[in-house]
Amino acid sequence: MPKVSQRGATIQASPIRKLVPFADEAKKRGLKVYHLNIGQPDIPTPAPVLDAIRHFDGKIISYGHSQGLLELRQAVAGYFQRYGYGIETENVLISIAGSEAIHFAFSVVADTGGEILIPEPYYTNYNGYASFADVRIVPLVTRAEEGFHLPPVEEIEKKITPRTRAILLCSPNNPTGTILTREELEGVAKLAVKHDLFLIGDEVYKEFAYDGYRHTSLLELPGLEDRVIVVDSVSKRFSSCGARIGCVVTRNEAVMEALVKFAQARLCPPMVEQLAALAAYRMDPAYFDPIREEYQRRRDTMFDALSRIDGVVLKKPRGAFYMIAKIPVTDSDHFAQWLLDRFDHSGETVMVAPGNGFYGTPTLGHDEVRLAYVLCEEDIRKAMVCFEEGLRRYRATC
Amino acid sequence: MPKVSQRGATIQASPIRKLVPFADEAKKRGLKVYHLNIGQPDIPTPAPVLDAIRHFDGKIISYGHSQGLLELRQAVAGYFQRYGYGIETENVLISIAGSEAIHFAFSVVADTGGEILIPEPYYTNYNGYASFADVRIVPLVTRAEEGFHLPPVEEIEKKITPRTRAILLCSPNNPTGTILTREELEGVAKLAVKHDLFLIGDEVYKEFAYDGYRHTSLLELPGLEDRVIVVDSVSKRFSSCGARIGCVVTRNEAVMEALVKFAQARLCPPMVEQLAALAAYRMDPAYFDPIREEYQRRRDTMFDALSRIDGVVLKKPRGAFYMIAKIPVTDSDHFAQWLLDRFDHSGETVMVAPGNGFYGTPTLGHDEVRLAYVLCEEDIRKAMVCFEEGLRRYRATC
Repeated sequence: MPKVSQRGATIQASPIRKLVPFADEAKKRGLKVYHLNIGQPDIPTPAPVLDAIRHFDGKIISYGHSQGLLELRQAVAGYFQRYGYGIETENVLISIAGSEAIHFAFSVVADTGGEILIPEPYYTNYNGYASFADVRIVPLVTRAEEGFHLPPVEEIEKKITPRTRAILLCSPNNPTGTILTREELEGVAKLAVKHDLFLIGDEVYKEFAYDGYRHTSLLELPGLEDRVIVVDSVSKRFSSCGARIGCVVTRNEAVMEALVKFAQARLCPPMVEQLAALAAYRMDPAYFDPIREEYQRRRDTMFDALSRIDGVVLKKPRGAFYMIAKIPVTDSDHFAQWLLDRFDHSGETVMVAPGNGFYGTPTLGHDEVRLAYVLCEEDIRKAMVCFEEGLRRYRATC
Repeated sequence: MPKVSQRGATIQASPIRKLVPFADEAKKRGLKVYHLNIGQPDIPTPAPVLDAIRHFDGKIISYGHSQGLLELRQAVAGYFQRYGYGIETENVLISIAGSEAIHFAFSVVADTGGEILIPEPYYTNYNGYASFADVRIVPLVTRAEEGFHLPPVEEIEKKITPRTRAILLCSPNNPTGTILTREELEGVAKLAVKHDLFLIGDEVYKEFAYDGYRHTSLLELPGLEDRVIVVDSVSKRFSSCGARIGCVVTRNEAVMEALVKFAQARLCPPMVEQLAALAAYRMDPAYFDPIREEYQRRRDTMFDALSRIDGVVLKKPRGAFYMIAKIPVTDSDHFAQWLLDRFDHSGETVMVAPGNGFYGTPTLGHDEVRLAYVLCEEDIRKAMVCFEEGLRRYRATC
C-alpha cells in the first residue's frame, strides 16, 4: 500500500476540533455541552446577509472572476477607506475565507523551507497552511503573565535568520485576545524594514476591541506599503463563519500579481456567498456597536469568573473573543477530554481547547486552555460553573 | 522591497483566463464575443438547487463539520453506490470544489519534490496545485492523431522514477474529451501496483459520455481499494460551477485521516452551497439524460464544423465538453489574442484557449487550441463561422 506524504502524516489535527468525537459521545449520553472550544458566535447573521441569499435570482450559479466579484472588491475597499487606510479596489483580492487568505499569504512570501516568525500562542490553523506550503513557523514566546504582549524587539530580532521571509502579527489576537499597541507594531515594522521582510497582518477581529481600546492596523503605518499583506474575513465581523468569504489586501503589485495567479488556480470563491458578503459590507458600520457591547459584557462575565478561580493566571484581554488562561493542571489536553468523558455537573459540561495546540514550541501550553466567549452571558455563566467545578474535581481525583 | 516567493513568481497564469482582458476590450469596442475558452455551461442550474439556496432558513451561517455536511456525504456516497462502486459515507470528504479536491489529493500523495505522472495535454489548473504543493508534474505525451489515447504501458513505465508517487488519469478528459478505455485504465493500474503508486482519478465529467460510450471509474477496478483517490465536483454535472462544492473519495483509511486534517485547517466548505449540492445529489439521475443529449448535439455541431476546415486535425471526442484541435498555425497564443484584438466577422468574434497552456512540455501545443462546447448550438455554429473565417484571415495576413 503506498504511503501518505510526510505532510499528510504529520499535519496537526485541529486542537479546536479534535475532541469533537468526545463531545458527540457526551451529548449522546444526554449531557448538555457548552462549546467554548470554537469561535462560532451565536450572534445571528445580519438580516441583509440572509436576504441576499434568499433573494438570489441567478439562473445559473456560474464561475466569477478569480479575484472575486468586482462589486464586492469595491465594497471591501470602501470598508478599508472608511478607516482611512488608502486601499483601492485593485489592492483587494477576495479569498475563500481567512483560511485561504492565510494560505495565499504564506505561499506568496515563502518557498519550501522559508520561515515565518509568529508570536505564540497563535491561531492553530497557521500550522495547516505552513504544512501545505512547506514553510516553517518560527514561534516567538509570549506569556500569560505579560498579557501575551510582544517581547522586546531585540528578543524578536534574535529569531530572524537568512531564511526568514515574514513576520505575522494577529491583533486583536486569536487565541489570546491581546491587542498589540501601536508601539509594538512599529517596533516589528522597523525589524521588517531592516531585514527586508514581509509583514502579514491577521486582522479579522479588527472591530472586536473593548474598554475604549482601538486596533491599529499594519495598513496605517507609513512606509510599509510594499511590505504589508493583510488577511481579513467576514466570518466573525458579520457572524457568517460558514460563508467562507475573506480577502487579502496588499499594495505590493508583484504580490497581487502572484495572488491573482494563485486565485486563478482555484477559479473563483463561492458565488452565492459573495453576494451575501456584499450585502454585509454595504451595511452601516454602526451595525457592529451593540455587538461590540454584547461581547464586552461576555468578556467581563468570563474574565470575572476565571479570575475568581484559585491558581488561574490571566490578564484582562482587550479584544477578539478568546482568552488563554493558565490553569493549575499539567496536561490540559487530558483535562479537556476528561471534562467531556468523565465529568458532568447537574447534567452539563463544558468543552474547551487545550492550550498546547496553539504553540509551536512543544513544551508550552500544557497548563493552558483557550476559551471563546461566543455564547450568551447566561450560558457563559453556567459554563464557567462547570469549568470551575470540573477543575476542582479534576485536581482532587486525577 | 521583499521579493515574492519563487512559487508566486513562477506559477502559471491560467491559459483559460489570461486573455480575459483582451476579451473585455473587444466587448468595450462593441464586439460580440463567443466564449469557447472556458467550461462555463449555459445549462440552467436545476430548480431544486436554486430552491435550496432561496429557502435557506438558518439564522446563522455557521461553521460545519470539516468533512462536510453529513447528509451531503451520505447523498454523495449514495450517488456512487448507484454506480455500484461500494463507497460508504466515511469514504467521502466534501471539498471546496474539484479545485481543493485536487490540492488535497496532490498534498496527500506527495511531498516537496515528489512526482505525479499525468498524460498531457492536461487540465491546466493541476499546475497551480503542483506549485502550491511544490510537487512536480511529469507529463506523458498523447497526440491529436491518436485521439489523445494513452501510449503503450511500456512508454508510461519509462517515466516512473523513485520520486514518482502517483499517476493521475482524467476521464472523460478535460481538455481533450477523450474517454479512456477500461483496458487503458487496467494497464495503468498494473503499473501502479507494480511500482506501489497512488492512482488519482479526476472523474468530474463522468456522465458526459456520448455515442453510447460509458466512463469506467478507477473505483470499479478490483484490487485497487488502497490506491485510488477520486476527485469529483458538482460544477459541471449540475451546472453549478460557482457553488464550489466537490469531494474526494477514497477507501484508504490513512489517506482519509490525513485529508480530514487538511480539511480541518480550512475549517469547512461553504455552508449554503453545501445545501444546494445536497439538493442536487438528491435529484433523480434521469435529470441528466436530456442534458447529455444536448451536449452530444453541440459536440456534433462543433466537430462537424472543425472537421470541414482545411489543415485541422482531431478525432471525434467521446466525452466531457471540450475538444483539442490541431490547427495550421505556429503560435496559437498569438492567434487567440489576434482573434480578440484584431479580428471581427460582422461584429462578432470567438475566444479560445491556446493549447500550449495545457502541456507540461514547453514545446507542445503551440499549434493547438481547446474549445469548450458549452454554448447553445446556434451560438456554436456562429462561433465556428468566426473561427474558420478568423483562421483563414490570420493565415493570409500573419
